[in-house]
Amino acid sequence: MSKKLTKYILPEKEMPTSWYNILPDLPEPMPPMLHPQTHEPTILPPPLFPAALNDQEFSKEHTIEIPDEVLDVYKMYRPTPLIRAYRLEKALGTPAQIFYKYEGVSAAGSHKLNTAIAQAYYNKKAGIKRLATETGAGQWGSALALACQYMGLECKVYMVKVSYNQKPYRRIMMETWGAKVVASPSTDTNFGKQVLAEDPNCPGSLGMAISEACEDAFSRDDTSYSLGSVLNHVILHQSIIGLETKKQLEMADVEADIIIGCVGGGSNFGGLAVPFVKDKMKGKKIELIAVEPTACPSMTRGPLAWDLGDVAGMAPIVMMYTLGHSFIPSPIHAGGLRYHGMSPLVSHLHKLKLIDARAVNQKATFESAIQFARTEGIIPAPEPAHAIKVVIDEALKCKESGQKKVIVLGLSGHGHFDLSAYDQFLSGKLEADAYDEAKVKQSLAQLPKIDYVAPK
Amino acid sequence: MSKKLTKYILPEKEMPTSWYNILPDLPEPMPPMLHPQTHEPTILPPPLFPAALNDQEFSKEHTIEIPDEVLDVYKMYRPTPLIRAYRLEKALGTPAQIFYKYEGVSAAGSHKLNTAIAQAYYNKKAGIKRLATETGAGQWGSALALACQYMGLECKVYMVKVSYNQKPYRRIMMETWGAKVVASPSTDTNFGKQVLAEDPNCPGSLGMAISEACEDAFSRDDTSYSLGSVLNHVILHQSIIGLETKKQLEMADVEADIIIGCVGGGSNFGGLAVPFVKDKMKGKKIELIAVEPTACPSMTRGPLAWDLGDVAGMAPIVMMYTLGHSFIPSPIHAGGLRYHGMSPLVSHLHKLKLIDARAVNQKATFESAIQFARTEGIIPAPEPAHAIKVVIDEALKCKESGQKKVIVLGLSGHGHFDLSAYDQFLSGKLEADAYDEAKVKQSLAQLPKIDYVAPK
Repeated sequence: MSKKLTKYILPEKEMPTSWYNILPDLPEPMPPMLHPQTHEPTILPPPLFPAALNDQEFSKEHTIEIPDEVLDVYKMYRPTPLIRAYRLEKALGTPAQIFYKYEGVSAAGSHKLNTAIAQAYYNKKAGIKRLATETGAGQWGSALALACQYMGLECKVYMVKVSYNQKPYRRIMMETWGAKVVASPSTDTNFGKQVLAEDPNCPGSLGMAISEACEDAFSRDDTSYSLGSVLNHVILHQSIIGLETKKQLEMADVEADIIIGCVGGGSNFGGLAVPFVKDKMKGKKIELIAVEPTACPSMTRGPLAWDLGDVAGMAPIVMMYTLGHSFIPSPIHAGGLRYHGMSPLVSHLHKLKLIDARAVNQKATFESAIQFARTEGIIPAPEPAHAIKVVIDEALKCKESGQKKVIVLGLSGHGHFDLSAYDQFLSGKLEADAYDEAKVKQSLAQLPKIDYVAPK
Repeated sequence: MSKKLTKYILPEKEMPTSWYNILPDLPEPMPPMLHPQTHEPTILPPPLFPAALNDQEFSKEHTIEIPDEVLDVYKMYRPTPLIRAYRLEKALGTPAQIFYKYEGVSAAGSHKLNTAIAQAYYNKKAGIKRLATETGAGQWGSALALACQYMGLECKVYMVKVSYNQKPYRRIMMETWGAKVVASPSTDTNFGKQVLAEDPNCPGSLGMAISEACEDAFSRDDTSYSLGSVLNHVILHQSIIGLETKKQLEMADVEADIIIGCVGGGSNFGGLAVPFVKDKMKGKKIELIAVEPTACPSMTRGPLAWDLGDVAGMAPIVMMYTLGHSFIPSPIHAGGLRYHGMSPLVSHLHKLKLIDARAVNQKATFESAIQFARTEGIIPAPEPAHAIKVVIDEALKCKESGQKKVIVLGLSGHGHFDLSAYDQFLSGKLEADAYDEAKVKQSLAQLPKIDYVAPK
């Protein structure tokens, strides 16, 4: 047996006990959130979020202690493994060392559980009995359903109707964990009823599901709303991914040259990246690459602009790379990467040139995913498969240059519920995704006009 | 954070490097295998299996070294975790300590990969280029597909047609790993063509798929046949589960009072149990409970008898607990527990009173599975859910008696591809399975008449 380790596993007692908050370390503060009506700086809408999460959203503390109750649940699946991709390296013939941080070991199957547990905990502590949320592909809904079960909260999930019908396994998973799941638009909210009155066959959209979940939370005292990405407190909770990865790279006695993760709302990449961005701000040489799909390239093609976080304009206005809140990307299989904008924090890091962004095509992505599955075994979700494509590109560059770079991939989840996309790819039926410039132009014309200027 | 460990994780360097072979330790030798035609003692049919596996089937060595190439692949997912079920214990209010050995962390999602990798390796070493096998629910086919990909072999899977149509995700998984999968009966074999000529709409059966895979292997010099359970060499390879578990219980500073696992062909339970059976033979007090479904209770209701291993009579005749080779159990959801007989080795252990057997109903099983999923997060496959039912029964007995027993569950795989069964249960549509005494009686009447008497 080779003496080289394959998996770098932190003992439970070395699991980080604080999250890392990058906000006070930034060389330039983030722009504020603006109220969607008044356009004045605002906090997170108070009836929707408990105070503790709002405090974290704008915290000036460098670290925030993880509550014991959250740590005890984290310990059921964390620390997650960092795995050396020997077989992929060999197949590529690269001198690069490839490591992947695998978040798919959680029962919910992705990194989403890290923030779901924390959010359920803080809501429970604030006396909330029930959480409402939306889900598209189902990763976030599954994670919140399980987290609510762990914390003894009820959970109501508005699942985009087209996904509800196409992905019954995700729905059943949420129900197995005790959540109530309805197809959105539903008759459970006034907004849903209104939509259905106009179009009884409406397939739904993430924007509509958000509006239903928000209305649900607004209308009941015992209920909060929960968001699985985009916001600072979500990336804060996800920082445990990067903190563990740093310790594991020390175990492996290497330093990362390149960190690569996929970005939709930004929480997977953000959580992996922030501890390494901290090093970079201190002068360390490290590349951080956020990978988005060609069909929804907010950072590689969109402007940095004030835009609405949601379609209906209920959420605050934020400064972010965006394709415009009315942009609806073509229906690619990586449902988690179809957000019109980008986390304001990740956008800010990109503006400060602390991270890079790259867009890759869905077809090349699935080719890479198959190569990964056939060497490393794990079948990746379509979202992190985008990052795998760039990992392979970088490893092949090393093959040409002879450089022995250390490449770290954020493998945010498995693709057990995305196999129909693999089937399409393997049978040659997967559509190539394309950038729709005209549609983006049209959408960008509808950006809100904001006069706000930050006080000096 | 609680200082008590949740997961007991062995370092890679402490992974067992030998399998444990219980055969030479048995107080009474196992009966031989008999040739299906001559009824004389026989070895595994030589053109179907390489010599190395046949040697292991009848080996007198106490331990067999695991080849380096196999260890290096094992290290991609092994050692697997032993997890303390704190939340389940709390929900039950039991003083018992419940641990589960989780084999679902492998990319194939179950323990089946442990023997698949070994079998692919020995076949490769024997110059074989291609393996043929059958699969019902798909766990075994997936594991062999991945193992063949790891070892650079081609893989052909004959998948029972009704499963092929009902479980497309399992088929896609095998194809993602490069296997060729056909619905059985197929037009790829003479046997399949013959069946289809008589009944073009035949839904197939495991027995038919075995016959197709065997014909495939018989007809090509470059191809062997591979079996995922029942045989001694399969349980030998699975002994790594029990060997790791013993080390992990030492880490936890406890000794097991009860070991519980589900049995279909017997490899999951056998692999977990054999190292503990060794202790029991030396006088240690430990209960080992094999759990089977009410609908297919070979050990709790069947006689110990000579019977055919397969429907068509191509495989050797073995001495085992059986419901008769022509018995077809009702279509319960735990497809892996529908074998008409039981591993001859597990049968022998039962005959020697070294292990106990219990049968549980499918409905009670799913109730237990839901309780497990809602406390421990992991959604179990329907097969190990049968064992969970007995774990809960035993833990509740401890609640009454106040005993602090240490209970170890073999959690052989996750249920990500079995969620439609959960859906049926949650919506109240799951059928109760029942023992069909008349059908078993009819089937037992067809047991082969064997005059063989072991020489003194």
